[in-house]
Amino acid sequence: MKVAIVGASGAVGQEFLRVLAEKDFPIDELVLFGSERSAGRTYKFRDKEYEVKLLRHGDDFKGVDIAFTSAGAGISKEYAGDITRYGAVMIDNSSAFRMDDDVPLVVPECNAGDALNRPRGIIANPNCTTIMMVVALQPLENLSHIRRIHVASYQSASGAGAAAMAELQQQYGEIIAGQPVTVKKFPHQLAYNVIPQIDVFQPNGYTKEEMKMFNETRKIMHSDVRCSAMCVRVSSLRAHSESVWIETERPISVEEAQRALAAAPGVTLHDDPANLVYPMPLDTAGKDDIFVGRVRKDLADDCGLTFWLSGDQIRKGAALNAVQIAEYLIKVGNVK
Amino acid sequence: MKVAIVGASGAVGQEFLRVLAEKDFPIDELVLFGSERSAGRTYKFRDKEYEVKLLRHGDDFKGVDIAFTSAGAGISKEYAGDITRYGAVMIDNSSAFRMDDDVPLVVPECNAGDALNRPRGIIANPNCTTIMMVVALQPLENLSHIRRIHVASYQSASGAGAAAMAELQQQYGEIIAGQPVTVKKFPHQLAYNVIPQIDVFQPNGYTKEEMKMFNETRKIMHSDVRCSAMCVRVSSLRAHSESVWIETERPISVEEAQRALAAAPGVTLHDDPANLVYPMPLDTAGKDDIFVGRVRKDLADDCGLTFWLSGDQIRKGAALNAVQIAEYLIKVGNVK
Repeated sequence: MKVAIVGASGAVGQEFLRVLAEKDFPIDELVLFGSERSAGRTYKFRDKEYEVKLLRHGDDFKGVDIAFTSAGAGISKEYAGDITRYGAVMIDNSSAFRMDDDVPLVVPECNAGDALNRPRGIIANPNCTTIMMVVALQPLENLSHIRRIHVASYQSASGAGAAAMAELQQQYGEIIAGQPVTVKKFPHQLAYNVIPQIDVFQPNGYTKEEMKMFNETRKIMHSDVRCSAMCVRVSSLRAHSESVWIETERPISVEEAQRALAAAPGVTLHDDPANLVYPMPLDTAGKDDIFVGRVRKDLADDCGLTFWLSGDQIRKGAALNAVQIAEYLIKVGNVK
Repeated sequence: MKVAIVGASGAVGQEFLRVLAEKDFPIDELVLFGSERSAGRTYKFRDKEYEVKLLRHGDDFKGVDIAFTSAGAGISKEYAGDITRYGAVMIDNSSAFRMDDDVPLVVPECNAGDALNRPRGIIANPNCTTIMMVVALQPLENLSHIRRIHVASYQSASGAGAAAMAELQQQYGEIIAGQPVTVKKFPHQLAYNVIPQIDVFQPNGYTKEEMKMFNETRKIMHSDVRCSAMCVRVSSLRAHSESVWIETERPISVEEAQRALAAAPGVTLHDDPANLVYPMPLDTAGKDDIFVGRVRKDLADDCGLTFWLSGDQIRKGAALNAVQIAEYLIKVGNVK
């Protein structure tokens, strides 16, 4: 299997290297691509050094079986033709193609089979916040159809990239040193703050990030569910958290939900409040699963349930989910 | 007017001194009370030094007109008899009496008149998170009855007291210095983290803090509203934020809600997302009003509306609200 990573120097690109190395992923040949800024850098993978090549138009993807792309929507759109021309499966982490009818949007725990129908050779990896939520929603949807979702997120700096994580750390250092605080990667200072904006605003008052949760959830879950999201940046480093309320067609009990969540693939139930056990970003960073806890009845809705989740935004929220899509294709013999 | 402050050395006690000094509050005599730990300390108020006296059983509250108490529920229960015996109005910031039928629970913007009926001489100051929410809800309730509330909070370290604020700052200092992180005031490390627990858990899986939002909101607003809350500690210092969804009897438009909020006492509408204007804890700390923004339709509910708010937890969430209750009593001539 010849694998390419586009955007190898970014936070997600680096996570691709870690996830692929940890897993028994069958790689015969690896090629790394990046911008002019990152071309020439070298990264270690399974004891071998690889140099980042400049991403350019042409035949560089000839012979590639799977290309993991994470270099922004603009780059994905510009190079999709080059990447897929000779049959490579492009598993794209950007938002470029997610809502296109002829591009499947896949979270393996929910809709792995959709990945098999990809007329353009592209499979889209969903938005991180959406991935985490649907992994927890699917086992509940299997119990009773979810009609409404209200969700408030607590998103970490990593969602804005590796430089944003560094900036948050730099801000705390500057505050402690009594220096002016550097604000470049976020619209406002994030240290000791909470920013109720992620991505740009749409005419309906929701941000793009919030509308992704509405639209992508419906596409992934093949559902008419209505989701109202509030996406908020908080001062954690790499795991996102979410407070989720759902209304189902029939009431689901807490015990029933906990059983379904505990048995669900990709979910770890961490729900023992008496012993102060619930998911937190400091614990879930670097882990594969989505951690769910604080499951309880929605006091405002007789058919409602509410819970809390946390998961690694760079891992299951991005690189791991894409690699799991590839693993599924390999397992069912559908790479080419 | 003779005014007493019980718990004068705490975060809220100190804020009482600041708020009373800033306002044209008619004080002829001021007495500060505290525990053995704080007795003997001195604090400046309007250019005069005051020494903290030891709180003890007896006649120390003889002649006091208004006592602001903020030393925890246990102290309030133990000393309520002493404080009110000679006619002082006890405005209590603890949770000791909030749900007692013969103790009014007051947010002046909502139910000032309730303060006049206080058979025990006690008026309870509500929970901080609840105060902030109801100040924003009242103008919307005036448009159409609110049936349900879903709310996720982003609460600052100050909610756990002055020592907790210092611990959060200490944690960042320790992380930067590569030292072990001190965890005493919170159940887990708060720096670079989010803790989905405030106060202790109840049998229904909600925390006490979350149940306060359910119960106190109904009492303050004289309402049958059902509120499902998720209360979360984040890494900000002294202002809380909340993401709120409401369902009203008839649909309220965004413009109608914005007009009502802009005109409401105690509310400042900060809702201009195109110019990155929305409430944030870094901006609302130290301010009197509750700041509301990101008003938009609830995409999951045709009768729903959602918004974001932020306000100073120690100020309107505690000391300021109590002082406003006292100001109302003075204004209507109802102190004794």
